Amino acid sequence: MTFTSPFKSLEWQNDRLRILDQTFLPEREVYADLDSAGQVWEAIKKLRVRGAPAIGIAGAYGLYLGIRELTNLNGFDSFYRECKRISDYLNSSRPTAVNLSWALQRMMDVIYAKKDQSIDELKQLALQTAKTIHDEDRRLCKSIGEHGLEIVPDRARILTHCNTGGLATGEFGTAFSVILHAFHAGKLEHVWVDETRPLLQGARLTTWELQQAEIPFTLNIDSAAGFLMQTGKVDLVITGADRITANGDAANKIGTYTLAVLAKEHDIPFYIAAPYSTIDLKLENGESIEIELRDEDEVTHFGNKRTAPKKVEVYNPAFDVTPGRLISGIITEKGIVHPDYSKSLRTLFQD
Amino acid sequence: MTFTSPFKSLEWQNDRLRILDQTFLPEREVYADLDSAGQVWEAIKKLRVRGAPAIGIAGAYGLYLGIRELTNLNGFDSFYRECKRISDYLNSSRPTAVNLSWALQRMMDVIYAKKDQSIDELKQLALQTAKTIHDEDRRLCKSIGEHGLEIVPDRARILTHCNTGGLATGEFGTAFSVILHAFHAGKLEHVWVDETRPLLQGARLTTWELQQAEIPFTLNIDSAAGFLMQTGKVDLVITGADRITANGDAANKIGTYTLAVLAKEHDIPFYIAAPYSTIDLKLENGESIEIELRDEDEVTHFGNKRTAPKKVEVYNPAFDVTPGRLISGIITEKGIVHPDYSKSLRTLFQD
Repeated sequence: MTFTSPFKSLEWQNDRLRILDQTFLPEREVYADLDSAGQVWEAIKKLRVRGAPAIGIAGAYGLYLGIRELTNLNGFDSFYRECKRISDYLNSSRPTAVNLSWALQRMMDVIYAKKDQSIDELKQLALQTAKTIHDEDRRLCKSIGEHGLEIVPDRARILTHCNTGGLATGEFGTAFSVILHAFHAGKLEHVWVDETRPLLQGARLTTWELQQAEIPFTLNIDSAAGFLMQTGKVDLVITGADRITANGDAANKIGTYTLAVLAKEHDIPFYIAAPYSTIDLKLENGESIEIELRDEDEVTHFGNKRTAPKKVEVYNPAFDVTPGRLISGIITEKGIVHPDYSKSLRTLFQD
Repeated sequence: MTFTSPFKSLEWQNDRLRILDQTFLPEREVYADLDSAGQVWEAIKKLRVRGAPAIGIAGAYGLYLGIRELTNLNGFDSFYRECKRISDYLNSSRPTAVNLSWALQRMMDVIYAKKDQSIDELKQLALQTAKTIHDEDRRLCKSIGEHGLEIVPDRARILTHCNTGGLATGEFGTAFSVILHAFHAGKLEHVWVDETRPLLQGARLTTWELQQAEIPFTLNIDSAAGFLMQTGKVDLVITGADRITANGDAANKIGTYTLAVLAKEHDIPFYIAAPYSTIDLKLENGESIEIELRDEDEVTHFGNKRTAPKKVEVYNPAFDVTPGRLISGIITEKGIVHPDYSKSLRTLFQD
């Protein structure tokens, strides 16, 4: 299925990385052209680029932008040492982002593997690798959307949580890619957007992406999702995932588990859409996933305004874990798997 | 069980109505002395007094404050006409608040019933009736708390939603009264407070009341409730209700239904605490309850700051309906009833 993406969060253009600066969304659509590793570092640090795959792609281009400037080098070893220095520097912009360190390591591995080539050739190779990382992410997101079509009923009213779209990835997104493809296939009637407390990625970003794509939607508070299902307004729930274990347990934005329980209560299919790389067969089940506890201010403040009394204790987990038994299927770029996940997930790794 | 309430939201003192001005909470504790019907009207209008029972009580005192000023009257008829004028005026401060019109009507009925008494006697009767309305609410809230003790396990970790405490009632509250009594009975270990989007009554008000009572608690976003239950941190869920139908269906703040579904999934008891007057046997079930849709700005803005794009469609229901089958019991001032509610609720009306 071919259609044009309504915007590009990242684009290599005129030898620079053009990003859509997400700190201005949803109020203004501001693009920034980055032409040094320092500018990329700042963009990641300040959340101008956010979303794990998007950060990885920006980091890869950032490494090339840093390498491009290197001159007066004394052979491969000193070149490689400088590459490593830039890579470490970029990695320090978001040390916990797995995709960032993965993308930077892949760039470094490619350079090292071709150490016999000239420095100029290696520079071009670095750019080519960054473009490949970007393209691969675009293709896998597109593939997730295409595979996902299979499970979307006609005239579907889909509920989703958090932001899983083109802003967070190379293009199209994960769960959002399924929504986008369903829309272009004429199968989508409406999207319900959970606002996604505490940081409101749904209210701020998913709504904006849906507007760009001209997809009909309605914004709701997270705790209205149960009422929407109870009153027959939801046909399908799709969310992303940050990590999936060998038995199909899925860690995702806090609130996802609640949606899965509600979906079960109302016999509504609940799907996860995520890249194959999210699946970690080394983890037996969700209990081994450590849940990040985030800052209390995200709950007690809104911008600078305090909304809870002083000295209030807050519990602010970033993620929850949805057990595989509540997940109707997991949509990946290699196809959809269904329970029993302890068997079906392994089949994805067999080719 | 006797203990001192940590604050008074409404108090008749030195011939005036002293209110805790809730528009300053949680940042500052500001009291205001109201000594005219106009000041009471303004306090209700501007949400300085909020919560259905508290508004009714304030309205009753307000009617007395207005009547007190009446002079040069030509017999009962002209006195009563003036009373009616003040009553209508006060009622216009929150036309949809059932408790307000109920309290004002009760005041008017008492005055009319004693039309043979002198104007001065009727003025005193009006004050006495306002005090009675206040006392009755205090006593019923206390009684709800005492009855509720029965279903609170030792070392209970209770999760609650919205604000159901002394701020919203004459004293003690409804669901909050059970928490308060459990605490003073040494049965309470911890309270989990849902922040309660969109207006954050949990984060702003329930936390403040718990701090005043020195009860240990933690604030969480609404969509973390499922994760709290999944990880074994909740023993009991108690919320209030705005209306209960003959079959036990309960309308309450949006998000209550989701909590009931989650409680069922985790075999956690889910109780409603509400005055007997909340039960409406004329309504067969929850489908006959009209759900108020509130302003989009509550979801798209935070104070003056826009948090969603312009022209976003919003679905913002104020309430949802929890079916009786998900409610372990309903705690009223007359005792606790359990399913089958279509039978048990009627027994409350038999004495």
